[in-house]
Amino acid sequence: MILRIDRLQVELPPPTDPDPDGAAAVQELMGGRFGEMSTLLNYTFQSFNFRGRQGARPFYDLVANIAAEEYGHIELVAATINSMLTGASDSGNGDGSLGDALSGVKSARNTQQFIGGGQGALPQDSNGRPWNGDYIFSSGDLVEDLTHNFFLETGARNNKLKVYEMTAHPAARALTGYLLCRGGVHQIAYARAIEKLTGADLTKLFPTPRIPTDKIPECQPHIKRGEHKRLYRFSPDDYREIVAVFNGPHPETGEELEVVDHAPEGALPNDLPPQTAVFAPDYHPEEISEIAARLRSSAGLPEQPTGQVAAAEEEGLADKVKDKLS
Amino acid sequence: MILRIDRLQVELPPPTDPDPDGAAAVQELMGGRFGEMSTLLNYTFQSFNFRGRQGARPFYDLVANIAAEEYGHIELVAATINSMLTGASDSGNGDGSLGDALSGVKSARNTQQFIGGGQGALPQDSNGRPWNGDYIFSSGDLVEDLTHNFFLETGARNNKLKVYEMTAHPAARALTGYLLCRGGVHQIAYARAIEKLTGADLTKLFPTPRIPTDKIPECQPHIKRGEHKRLYRFSPDDYREIVAVFNGPHPETGEELEVVDHAPEGALPNDLPPQTAVFAPDYHPEEISEIAARLRSSAGLPEQPTGQVAAAEEEGLADKVKDKLS
Amino acid sequence: MILRIDRLQVELPPPTDPDPDGAAAVQELMGGRFGEMSTLLNYTFQSFNFRGRQGARPFYDLVANIAAEEYGHIELVAATINSMLTGASDSGNGDGSLGDALSGVKSARNTQQFIGGGQGALPQDSNGRPWNGDYIFSSGDLVEDLTHNFFLETGARNNKLKVYEMTAHPAARALTGYLLCRGGVHQIAYARAIEKLTGADLTKLFPTPRIPTDKIPECQPHIKRGEHKRLYRFSPDDYREIVAVFNGPHPETGEELEVVDHAPEGALPNDLPPQTAVFAPDYHPEEISEIAARLRSSAGLPEQPTGQVAAAEEEGLADKVKDKLS
Amino acid sequence: MILRIDRLQVELPPPTDPDPDGAAAVQELMGGRFGEMSTLLNYTFQSFNFRGRQGARPFYDLVANIAAEEYGHIELVAATINSMLTGASDSGNGDGSLGDALSGVKSARNTQQFIGGGQGALPQDSNGRPWNGDYIFSSGDLVEDLTHNFFLETGARNNKLKVYEMTAHPAARALTGYLLCRGGVHQIAYARAIEKLTGADLTKLFPTPRIPTDKIPECQPHIKRGEHKRLYRFSPDDYREIVAVFNGPHPETGEELEVVDHAPEGALPNDLPPQTAVFAPDYHPEEISEIAARLRSSAGLPEQPTGQVAAAEEEGLADKVKDKLS
Amino acid sequence: MILRIDRLQVELPPPTDPDPDGAAAVQELMGGRFGEMSTLLNYTFQSFNFRGRQGARPFYDLVANIAAEEYGHIELVAATINSMLTGASDSGNGDGSLGDALSGVKSARNTQQFIGGGQGALPQDSNGRPWNGDYIFSSGDLVEDLTHNFFLETGARNNKLKVYEMTAHPAARALTGYLLCRGGVHQIAYARAIEKLTGADLTKLFPTPRIPTDKIPECQPHIKRGEHKRLYRFSPDDYREIVAVFNGPHPETGEELEVVDHAPEGALPNDLPPQTAVFAPDYHPEEISEIAARLRSSAGLPEQPTGQVAAAEEEGLADKVKDKLS
Amino acid sequence: MILRIDRLQVELPPPTDPDPDGAAAVQELMGGRFGEMSTLLNYTFQSFNFRGRQGARPFYDLVANIAAEEYGHIELVAATINSMLTGASDSGNGDGSLGDALSGVKSARNTQQFIGGGQGALPQDSNGRPWNGDYIFSSGDLVEDLTHNFFLETGARNNKLKVYEMTAHPAARALTGYLLCRGGVHQIAYARAIEKLTGADLTKLFPTPRIPTDKIPECQPHIKRGEHKRLYRFSPDDYREIVAVFNGPHPETGEELEVVDHAPEGALPNDLPPQTAVFAPDYHPEEISEIAARLRSSAGLPEQPTGQVAAAEEEGLADKVKDKLS
Repeated sequence: MILRIDRLQVELPPPTDPDPDGAAAVQELMGGRFGEMSTLLNYTFQSFNFRGRQGARPFYDLVANIAAEEYGHIELVAATINSMLTGASDSGNGDGSLGDALSGVKSARNTQQFIGGGQGALPQDSNGRPWNGDYIFSSGDLVEDLTHNFFLETGARNNKLKVYEMTAHPAARALTGYLLCRGGVHQIAYARAIEKLTGADLTKLFPTPRIPTDKIPECQPHIKRGEHKRLYRFSPDDYREIVAVFNGPHPETGEELEVVDHAPEGALPNDLPPQTAVFAPDYHPEEISEIAARLRSSAGLPEQPTGQVAAAEEEGLADKVKDKLS
Repeated sequence: MILRIDRLQVELPPPTDPDPDGAAAVQELMGGRFGEMSTLLNYTFQSFNFRGRQGARPFYDLVANIAAEEYGHIELVAATINSMLTGASDSGNGDGSLGDALSGVKSARNTQQFIGGGQGALPQDSNGRPWNGDYIFSSGDLVEDLTHNFFLETGARNNKLKVYEMTAHPAARALTGYLLCRGGVHQIAYARAIEKLTGADLTKLFPTPRIPTDKIPECQPHIKRGEHKRLYRFSPDDYREIVAVFNGPHPETGEELEVVDHAPEGALPNDLPPQTAVFAPDYHPEEISEIAARLRSSAGLPEQPTGQVAAAEEEGLADKVKDKLS
Repeated sequence: MILRIDRLQVELPPPTDPDPDGAAAVQELMGGRFGEMSTLLNYTFQSFNFRGRQGARPFYDLVANIAAEEYGHIELVAATINSMLTGASDSGNGDGSLGDALSGVKSARNTQQFIGGGQGALPQDSNGRPWNGDYIFSSGDLVEDLTHNFFLETGARNNKLKVYEMTAHPAARALTGYLLCRGGVHQIAYARAIEKLTGADLTKLFPTPRIPTDKIPECQPHIKRGEHKRLYRFSPDDYREIVAVFNGPHPETGEELEVVDHAPEGALPNDLPPQTAVFAPDYHPEEISEIAARLRSSAGLPEQPTGQVAAAEEEGLADKVKDKLS
Repeated sequence: MILRIDRLQVELPPPTDPDPDGAAAVQELMGGRFGEMSTLLNYTFQSFNFRGRQGARPFYDLVANIAAEEYGHIELVAATINSMLTGASDSGNGDGSLGDALSGVKSARNTQQFIGGGQGALPQDSNGRPWNGDYIFSSGDLVEDLTHNFFLETGARNNKLKVYEMTAHPAARALTGYLLCRGGVHQIAYARAIEKLTGADLTKLFPTPRIPTDKIPECQPHIKRGEHKRLYRFSPDDYREIVAVFNGPHPETGEELEVVDHAPEGALPNDLPPQTAVFAPDYHPEEISEIAARLRSSAGLPEQPTGQVAAAEEEGLADKVKDKLS
Repeated sequence: MILRIDRLQVELPPPTDPDPDGAAAVQELMGGRFGEMSTLLNYTFQSFNFRGRQGARPFYDLVANIAAEEYGHIELVAATINSMLTGASDSGNGDGSLGDALSGVKSARNTQQFIGGGQGALPQDSNGRPWNGDYIFSSGDLVEDLTHNFFLETGARNNKLKVYEMTAHPAARALTGYLLCRGGVHQIAYARAIEKLTGADLTKLFPTPRIPTDKIPECQPHIKRGEHKRLYRFSPDDYREIVAVFNGPHPETGEELEVVDHAPEGALPNDLPPQTAVFAPDYHPEEISEIAARLRSSAGLPEQPTGQVAAAEEEGLADKVKDKLS
Repeated sequence: MILRIDRLQVELPPPTDPDPDGAAAVQELMGGRFGEMSTLLNYTFQSFNFRGRQGARPFYDLVANIAAEEYGHIELVAATINSMLTGASDSGNGDGSLGDALSGVKSARNTQQFIGGGQGALPQDSNGRPWNGDYIFSSGDLVEDLTHNFFLETGARNNKLKVYEMTAHPAARALTGYLLCRGGVHQIAYARAIEKLTGADLTKLFPTPRIPTDKIPECQPHIKRGEHKRLYRFSPDDYREIVAVFNGPHPETGEELEVVDHAPEGALPNDLPPQTAVFAPDYHPEEISEIAARLRSSAGLPEQPTGQVAAAEEEGLADKVKDKLS
């Protein structure tokens, strides 16, 4: 089971200019064959289905623990898409009647983000097709599952690089810069696991595609902080044997790999503003706020919401979006 | 992001007689339209896509927190399927050559559990079709998402009851007994949320289908322990406002609903034995064990695996399975 | 638009022994590529999309009118499947608790008919996969659409013959006997339309597969009544120009084709008994009946239900099913 | 079975300027999860699969009768899409050779409307994916099916509002204005049915999304005519018990709901002009017209087509399209 | 089994201006229901599954031999798409870091050609959906399979004509001009086969759609060379009985059909230049070239690559693309 | 383009006892994610999409040439399935009327092999779902495509081993014995290619799953003949540079790898007998034979069919099947 923490693994910029077609491209990193739903659910299923896990504990712990990190990755991709879509609809007629607020996205690549969704992330790829269970590989054969995972991370790196090249939206770049770094760590982890089991040295395949990670500007801050050589342990008490596999030199830099015995601190999520044209969270969001305040009061909770979000408003960014919407 | 805990939310019995067609039926609770992948990923996406979450915090917290519990549900369904499949293949010729170890499941309903998987759970439904992203509804409109969630839980209850009736395998019954109880709590939570927002009283729809939950023998122990009226908070520090929505009387029993401020203690998972006929985790699992021991030693870890599993062996159950396999 | 008549186009026998795997096979005639959903929706879409329909009125009328008949065909296939599934679950423990009522169908070919459905027809094929819109061909090119339709009816005839051979259940045989006859009429209609437009004589392709329709025992009564040479007009006032295309000799028998200027009389549907194990229509159907009676009374309707169903009960058949269920 | 009437349930404007991307958006109302194919086929299957229908007659009649109305809705959506696509191709080189007539739609969102179709409606959603049978819910459990239907109508309302906002094309607006009104009636009908069965009052959920229907300009004429509180009976003689469920006050206006004992008069469809670039109905439509005239004459039919279409030509609208095409 | 020849069946022009949306449209001819994957795999499966082939040898040979030709057609479609995509990305920052090289195709209709693929052809249709096995019809009934094949070729002709009209890119026009000609031959072959078996004369259906093939400028050179009346035998020694079916007059021109007893000479493929922005074949293709040269040398092969490609460079076309990229 | 040779790559036994559920399992090797359609079409697309092929010629030749061999593999899988299905239907009533000839397969796992197909192979997997284009990976990045191919062959080996264990039918065993051997060669080829490009030694991963190939009895004859270390060149003149990659010691046996400069001799296919119950190739196959003889005569061909098939009849095997059928 899991405990959930209401923070992102890395800070994302608040919404700026909307970029619907960019957001459609980022969907590949969510629901594509090599998207984060795939990494999350592949490793999750493999850990669920792991037979003889006591005998193979270091490997079980590795797969299970990386699965836990991947949850945070789909969260980041969703936050990025939502950010890129914010402001893409107009705010309506102002008189409460319905207007042309979505006419600006009639030719957008993925109209279901608006018609079915609330200007939000979908479990779809960049061509608007849903993620499906055929993307999961869980053979139970440990060497084979690890080979798959190495290949999956390689394909994921490829797709992230291309999405990087496709949109320069600040949120997309913050996302891909971070994910390229973290995906690299997982690629190393699986290569190391295969090496420990069979002796085959896959580290010579790094980097694939053959662009060094440190040539990507948005990766550099993370590399400077050491994020490229560090495996976090995403559990209060479990998965302690990852250290038995994740060790030795980093294939690109030669630095020693390290296990961090807790989750990263992360960052507060942005509270993305309502988009009333798509009724998210409502046509009159203030009515919900009033009800929420009343409920909070009845339950003896503080007057202000207890959950924390990034302090976007102080920086005037919410206003900027609001301006755009009015 | 999440922290993962290597425990199940409820205890499952160790493997007994295999039941491949029963396991194929239980797949509906995994990858069917109303399966646990759907509840998990619907609420997860809705929480990711929630706009204006500060203004609607009690509702955001509710959806996000139930999403966290659902992760534990797909884990339980997988463990059940894996348990029901254990022992369904023979152990082979004994001389290391390949034989007819899978001939006994040639007419099983879902042969991919064996051919593609390692006698393991798949992200598929009971007809062997993959779960897909079209099963997710995340409109961003709060009232509508909650209406959906209430309907989803209703459909899920229906399917669990039918799977209950279809197989009496102890693991399947332990699973459905628990999930019916917990799903009922989520159904109540969403009904209450709708009521708080609109005034509509959906509690009169309980139970749907119209069989009282306490008429199901395997639900009774959980009801006795109060699991039917309790919402756990699956987070170290967040989602504190669920209490603002989840309160009032239980629609079936009239007891007061309660929020538990932490996750349930849960139970240790069974360490399901290798199934060498399908190479899970290997054709020679003992080789992996040796490597694992060496790695543990090099890393300065204890000699014995650090992770905990249910003490199946002491009860002779692993032997029973082993006997069957030899 | 349509008016709906609560009668079947032909009489079906009441439920006898259940035949779940036979019902799974009949699903091919519902949701398969050549099933009745395909014939219905192909002709329906072609009629909706017909451009320049005044200039091509006889052909428009033909396609639109056959589409109307096909609605009755999916109705018949559903009724057949539902009939074949009736009695396939047990009636439960008798004490209102939940038991093993579905254990008898755990290995049935299509378990979703029970888990997702209420022992009922699904929009799926015989391998349990859903019908989908890719089965529709609507190019707008009249000659090509007609060529498709001729091919579609040919494929449909093939599949019906095989389902005939696969199950001898009385309902399945009544269904295929009738549909083979009516499908033959549509095949002729499209062949004739192509001939009128291009001069190509497709009637030499009859019958395909090359078994004469009158060699099929269950077709003979319909042939005797002339159903094989008769096109009904399924409209109060429209589609009068079908007669301009559907004329000339029958390709197999040489008899003159004829247009009947109204719908067939048809037959009353059987009122299939509740199956409480799957909660259809409820766990306690008698409660619904009481509510229904009250509502009828409040609305000033007769005490007895106004709709008509086949007089199954008098023949003791409902009892037979009831016996089986208890 | 059905009788088909060659009229639309409401008048649609004749083609004006083409709007291919708008037409791609309207596809969501055809083949999307919440499109009219879904409402039509959900209620149709539920009525086919209804067990114990005599005992639950008012509810059976309600579902069966609404299913009948929905047939007219897919017809309207198709007519709208076809209208919006009319004129989107050029008329070709004029010398009978093939040219660039489709180059203007090379970047259109749904190119299959042109390549596979004849500038026509497809059974697809707004992302170009086919409708499929997984969108149908037919559990057989009456309360649950009705809960689903209420949710389905809610989702459908959401999607219609968004398509309304996405394109201001006159045909799209005429469509959504009408469907929002009629969908609202179905939403009420299902809410009332649930209330009658369980006592739960869902009318407090109206409207969802929370924009009053009368704030939508294109709904107002229909509201004025009372279309928002009226359930038509789409059958010559059957489904008479709908009145037992559909009664009481309208949830938004308080007016008394009423049952109309026949179908609406409706309107004649537009005869959409040929689009020769896509060979619909032919590369030389006049040849078909000549053949049709000959066939009519041979069959003793009047010289002029007997079917009726809207008198578009008198208003010069066909010419306008023709001008555009030349 | 097959032998593969590294030549195209017809010459294609080298890359000129990129046309991503045109390439997305051409995908329909690859992975659409009527694309070349469908013709290839339909006839291939029919030949594999042919029962009693000795007794029906001329028909078996016909289907098997046309299947062989179709392999060359998917090759041509792929080459066309790849050609149209060449140059659609920029060449990057020049300093080895990653830039915005794909920003120009962010709004392209099929972004997976870039993100998942290497600016390359995908097994998808023009709406970006994958080809699937449901497009194959292989009933085993010879008359029916041939009827299907005739219809399939008819649909394929329709789609090719529309793609022709949609993009005037030189590669697309070279492709469609050739395929329309060759597809016409297959259409004739199947019509003749049906006629031989049943007497039905389908040649009156030619041409469908009703535009004469010789009205298409890009078909004329092929017609002049006689490609429209010629069936090649794609085998060293087998399929000699095709001549027993493919004979008689051409339906459109009256010329005698002829069998050519070998494959066409074809043309050398263009060696499409690397696209480093998508890492095809690498971020630094010259490194691969060096390795290749070394490997060639070690294996005693000539210094220069032994395989042949079209002499694009001499014509300065590669430079033109190179210029565009720099 | 290709030339097709009417021989199988290896001899298969003639039909013996039918094994429908075994045939359903073998479908995984046809249309599963790791089936032969996947290997064939992955390598085919990669070769079509290969950019800069002159510079990377040895690698291009390798992928293109293995693609050619894979065509022969789908042919073998189809022949195996068809063989295993032969005799699974009864021969009918004998009087030309239709009977229960398919009742014996009503509960077979894949009824579409009979209803849609002619007791024949389908492009589906072992759960009856169609192969689809999402199974193709063609990134254009050479290292990545090769990594994928290595993983694909690994997964394919896993699935073949399991199918081997699932059915002992002689045709299935002959198939898997051969394919395991040949797949191993491809696995080596891709490992070697990766090693040549990057230095990474994947040969230490052999065998995966970890059962030595020579422990599989049906592989031994092929190993004795050297099939496990031999890459055939499937082209009259092309792909000569494969020798630059495929060399060095065999990872399991240490023997020197070798390139054979032509295709294998192969074996004649069995002429599988008609199955009249499914109309394959006809309800009266002798009528087709008579027409074929006439056509052959008119075309000046020999009286007897010119194509060659295995001399099954002499061995009395066709009679055995015939006996079973009568």
